[in-house]
Amino acid sequence: MTQSQVLTLHPDRFLGANENIVSIARRLFAETEQLPIISPHGHTNPSWFAENKPFDNASELLLTPDHYIFRMLYSQGISLQQLGMQGTDKSAIADPKSAWCAFAKHYHLFLGTPSRIWLDHVFSTVFGLKEILNEHSAALYYEHINAALQSPKFLPRSLLDRFQIETIATTEGALDSLASHQLLNADGLGKQVITTFRPDDVVDASREDFSGNLEKLAEITGEDTTSWQGYLSALRQRRHFFAQLGATATDHGHPSAQTADLDSGQCQLLLDKCKQGIASAEEQELFRAQMLTQMAAMSIEDGLVMQLHPGSFRNHNASLFSTFGRDKGADIPLAIEYVRALKPLMDKYGNEPNFTLILFTLDESTYARELAPLAGHYPCLKLGPAWWFHDSPEGMLRYRQQTTETAGFYNTVGFNDDTRALLSIPARHDLARRIDAQFLAGWVAQHRLQEDQALDIAKDLAYRLPKQAYKLDTN
Amino acid sequence: MTQSQVLTLHPDRFLGANENIVSIARRLFAETEQLPIISPHGHTNPSWFAENKPFDNASELLLTPDHYIFRMLYSQGISLQQLGMQGTDKSAIADPKSAWCAFAKHYHLFLGTPSRIWLDHVFSTVFGLKEILNEHSAALYYEHINAALQSPKFLPRSLLDRFQIETIATTEGALDSLASHQLLNADGLGKQVITTFRPDDVVDASREDFSGNLEKLAEITGEDTTSWQGYLSALRQRRHFFAQLGATATDHGHPSAQTADLDSGQCQLLLDKCKQGIASAEEQELFRAQMLTQMAAMSIEDGLVMQLHPGSFRNHNASLFSTFGRDKGADIPLAIEYVRALKPLMDKYGNEPNFTLILFTLDESTYARELAPLAGHYPCLKLGPAWWFHDSPEGMLRYRQQTTETAGFYNTVGFNDDTRALLSIPARHDLARRIDAQFLAGWVAQHRLQEDQALDIAKDLAYRLPKQAYKLDTN
Amino acid sequence: MTQSQVLTLHPDRFLGANENIVSIARRLFAETEQLPIISPHGHTNPSWFAENKPFDNASELLLTPDHYIFRMLYSQGISLQQLGMQGTDKSAIADPKSAWCAFAKHYHLFLGTPSRIWLDHVFSTVFGLKEILNEHSAALYYEHINAALQSPKFLPRSLLDRFQIETIATTEGALDSLASHQLLNADGLGKQVITTFRPDDVVDASREDFSGNLEKLAEITGEDTTSWQGYLSALRQRRHFFAQLGATATDHGHPSAQTADLDSGQCQLLLDKCKQGIASAEEQELFRAQMLTQMAAMSIEDGLVMQLHPGSFRNHNASLFSTFGRDKGADIPLAIEYVRALKPLMDKYGNEPNFTLILFTLDESTYARELAPLAGHYPCLKLGPAWWFHDSPEGMLRYRQQTTETAGFYNTVGFNDDTRALLSIPARHDLARRIDAQFLAGWVAQHRLQEDQALDIAKDLAYRLPKQAYKLDTN
Repeated sequence: MTQSQVLTLHPDRFLGANENIVSIARRLFAETEQLPIISPHGHTNPSWFAENKPFDNASELLLTPDHYIFRMLYSQGISLQQLGMQGTDKSAIADPKSAWCAFAKHYHLFLGTPSRIWLDHVFSTVFGLKEILNEHSAALYYEHINAALQSPKFLPRSLLDRFQIETIATTEGALDSLASHQLLNADGLGKQVITTFRPDDVVDASREDFSGNLEKLAEITGEDTTSWQGYLSALRQRRHFFAQLGATATDHGHPSAQTADLDSGQCQLLLDKCKQGIASAEEQELFRAQMLTQMAAMSIEDGLVMQLHPGSFRNHNASLFSTFGRDKGADIPLAIEYVRALKPLMDKYGNEPNFTLILFTLDESTYARELAPLAGHYPCLKLGPAWWFHDSPEGMLRYRQQTTETAGFYNTVGFNDDTRALLSIPARHDLARRIDAQFLAGWVAQHRLQEDQALDIAKDLAYRLPKQAYKLDTN
Repeated sequence: MTQSQVLTLHPDRFLGANENIVSIARRLFAETEQLPIISPHGHTNPSWFAENKPFDNASELLLTPDHYIFRMLYSQGISLQQLGMQGTDKSAIADPKSAWCAFAKHYHLFLGTPSRIWLDHVFSTVFGLKEILNEHSAALYYEHINAALQSPKFLPRSLLDRFQIETIATTEGALDSLASHQLLNADGLGKQVITTFRPDDVVDASREDFSGNLEKLAEITGEDTTSWQGYLSALRQRRHFFAQLGATATDHGHPSAQTADLDSGQCQLLLDKCKQGIASAEEQELFRAQMLTQMAAMSIEDGLVMQLHPGSFRNHNASLFSTFGRDKGADIPLAIEYVRALKPLMDKYGNEPNFTLILFTLDESTYARELAPLAGHYPCLKLGPAWWFHDSPEGMLRYRQQTTETAGFYNTVGFNDDTRALLSIPARHDLARRIDAQFLAGWVAQHRLQEDQALDIAKDLAYRLPKQAYKLDTN
Repeated sequence: MTQSQVLTLHPDRFLGANENIVSIARRLFAETEQLPIISPHGHTNPSWFAENKPFDNASELLLTPDHYIFRMLYSQGISLQQLGMQGTDKSAIADPKSAWCAFAKHYHLFLGTPSRIWLDHVFSTVFGLKEILNEHSAALYYEHINAALQSPKFLPRSLLDRFQIETIATTEGALDSLASHQLLNADGLGKQVITTFRPDDVVDASREDFSGNLEKLAEITGEDTTSWQGYLSALRQRRHFFAQLGATATDHGHPSAQTADLDSGQCQLLLDKCKQGIASAEEQELFRAQMLTQMAAMSIEDGLVMQLHPGSFRNHNASLFSTFGRDKGADIPLAIEYVRALKPLMDKYGNEPNFTLILFTLDESTYARELAPLAGHYPCLKLGPAWWFHDSPEGMLRYRQQTTETAGFYNTVGFNDDTRALLSIPARHDLARRIDAQFLAGWVAQHRLQEDQALDIAKDLAYRLPKQAYKLDTN
């Protein structure tokens, strides 16, 4: 094997590009590397842990569910059918092994991307592979991974323990029965695997299933969801149900950060129009805006931490969406505004002591301009970590460089892996801890922090802050 | 004392993170470190220098006037009352010593912020303190600082000399009597402490006191400020008065950078509506826009350098504003546009040889996109330094990285401290000079500048450019 | 000579600021330094190569055609007349030698700019000059350069070979006769110097000459350009003509990235209004938007690669424009939006296999937010290199830092010099290859890439990707 065909993870990777910084970063990382993983925001499937069955094969585990991976292949002309994904057009698709080989053949496309970093970490540390993935090693990989997946140590619950995952949160819609979480609870895993309340399906009237969802919400709760007060009571009830099954947080994925503060008469009129499917795009936006304020009010009552993930243009590729549906790698960030958008909510609840709103962004120009000044002032606001496209080495460095000087470290909440790719969770936390070590070491090297201060911060970012911000310390 | 409890300022701090750069930066900084301070834009209180009385105590000197500090404490749930600040609600407040202790206990929140850098510099170099501030050293700090403040070498005029401040500009509203500056003039300090003409109070019709201010302006000047020509004459008169007391510049704090070029009939109509309080928000904006163009016209007549500080959403926290008033750490930057906004003013005066307009921004995305290209073309335009939230190590580096390649160094104006915190002025200039040394050293290290070129630039940025841009060399 | 007066190009320039990175970058650059130059997008004058006559003098070669240079001088109060440029006001102008001396005297203004880097490279490597340009060396430079220009090795075709330019594309308007390219073709240089189809003059109805241009287009093609179908046929014909003379690409310089998908009835109505000069600004914008979609359709037919260069506010300085015309250094970038703007075009052709659209930007905030996610998904989209103001060391680093993690290296197209300054072409490619070497070395140093992977990427960026993206490999 020539050098580039050997798969190795250098112990100093991502700790810096000069020895002065690396030597400090190495000491910092040594103290955070082994800390348990807190994963307070993610999208793994709770049935994996509830049922604890083996995963099928390499492609269905690592390739087809991961839009980071197939979007890149698609951008270079590889069809989703070649990757084994079935669309509504029923055209022929590759079998899982052929799909895996197509991926392997184009693995060089991922050089420089975080997907490559995570995958190499998975291949090396989880599966013990020694060669780089390419068209020559594709078959070996496929067989090796499939074989491993049948062994007990690759069962989902075993992986949780092997990965030292102290707490992992999944995300469920408001109508979810939480059956898996009930099973987990019964098995004594209710603190290790918790849910998160994500009510977009009953709040976003631009969805085609909105009206039906309100009817289901009425059935589940026994409330009249056509009345504003009944609708709110139903939501309150669902939040309570989620909290009983471990939820400490809610999550809201909105096109914008717009909030509103309307009177209940206006709210009833909006709800009526939304329910009847006659609301304009502006009215749907206003309804979502109002609902963020209502969710804040309920958070103050029930203590659930609120998360806002705005600013993605979902399903931008119309023909791909019509054939393959949602989450196919065609969600594109938009420029976003927080200062005016959040004012109605801040005017109402910005100074409430028992309220936490964690803000995320896909528009990095808001880090230093809007988000750090907002979080550096309002007691309720905290900054979520670098999100999605920006959850990468350069992206995480920019996040720290652009938020820390105004917001400090203590208005941030540590790392979120935000993933449905279970196997990549240790890789992602490993990378985040390395990048924080590099960043802090750079400041120690220029005498901006003392090393013991940096060490405290590193441990806080890796472990203490996420527990605290998501109220997992009192869990 | 363990390491983290010793307060030390490393001689190489902020000069770089590898020895290659630090060794060059050290040589550059050695040549700028001792240069006198030019402070052409700031907000110290001129009565301090006019009256030359001792400051009261640590809290009232360092804590309660500094919105950088109390906003961070507030963001972590510490109330302004706990910091000794009295609101209109008349609730009980902490005494100055308790306030100081609350601050000290949370001093770790400032790790990574420029406030921490400036404060540690003040504690160490101005007060000679040897321990880091924390809850244990809080009382020692409080007593030590208070005692020091009573000694003659801590009188405001002594500090000016001790800090080697060659010129400092304060900022006064258009209606100010400049009594302090008259006293300073009489005492022979009229060149060391100068004023700046800031007419927002008589130009911004969104202020509740605008109409009353126009009446006061009429009284002071004997002009009819209800007539457009009388209003302009009154402003011209006040500019002359300020210039006689040392002003070489005007300053304009507007929500946007919008300018306009209306005919005098339109101007009279707008003035009428603004005066009567019936102008819409758009009309108020148009009036401010027109007034920027008028101020430019007067600058061409009287030679005062014009400064524009746009893009802050002031007093974003409504309840804090109603209880505690302005400047309570809730000013949040907005995305801003310069290219279209400045066109009317540039069309009229952009090529005038006797005109300087210094632009500032809180939206860093405009550095490379709009500001550097504008300043790299228009003879009248110069770029002010990294402002407010961005006056920090990473912020100043981004400013140089993003403006220099298009605007060069010589379309910038050196450093502004922009502070009301007198004691921090040397700390701020020290930091700015270190960061410029680091930046220039990085370019020398990659053979982009020769070291003697970098040295000339370093000295220009620290001393010659601010004198020249603000016309202090002909002062 | 003191150090700063010696003109030297350090062999390690722009390879990094610490030895760890420089030593790797040196090895990478050694493998790309000598690769032939592919220049697929530029603005040299094809008549230079067709006629192969000597250039006139230093000023007319290097100074007056280069808006990067005279805009900086203008920004510091040097008039265009002092630089020898004649306006419509017929005021007296400096002779070429005086103009050169004015430039030389202010050469320090360019410290830190890419113009300085390129010029020093030209002075040193092309002309063999040993002293830095300044007022003392001005005359020596002027005589030396003028003398050199008369020698055969400075003839345009000699320079092409000396510079190892394998392919260079010029840019011509839709009405151009391509006379020079016909001559070049006859001389066997038709593959080395190719044209690019730039139809802005017959697509942008905001131009004062638009209606006349449509009439000329009708004359040239024999089509009825007042009919929508005739107009499209005429464009198709011209594209074919350009392709026959070597064009592999089209280029579109629009104020925004807006696209549209109208029916042919709407198109005919818009064309009518535009032709008659009665279209509103919005209708002109909509017409341009529609024409981008039409050009994409034709690209799918004829295989020409499409390039979009949006987001410049052209001729911002009104008085300079009225006296000196276009391209006088007063084009200023604007904030720009791609996600919504490109949707109509992407909905129609985004998944076409035989379509390439290369996107450029002047708004760096779109790199990570919009462009990398778009290019990392759509098969037709590729990212052009850092453009214009951002074609600089820091700008190119930001481009890689902000695009690579989402788009990878293989959704980019290598370097474009985009220049009309023939002599600076090797300087620009040299700089781009050095910066890519530095960037890649930084990632090797932190064990993010293996060195052999970085080497492959470096060679791809320097040579293979531009050939492939612009279809020059099948040329």
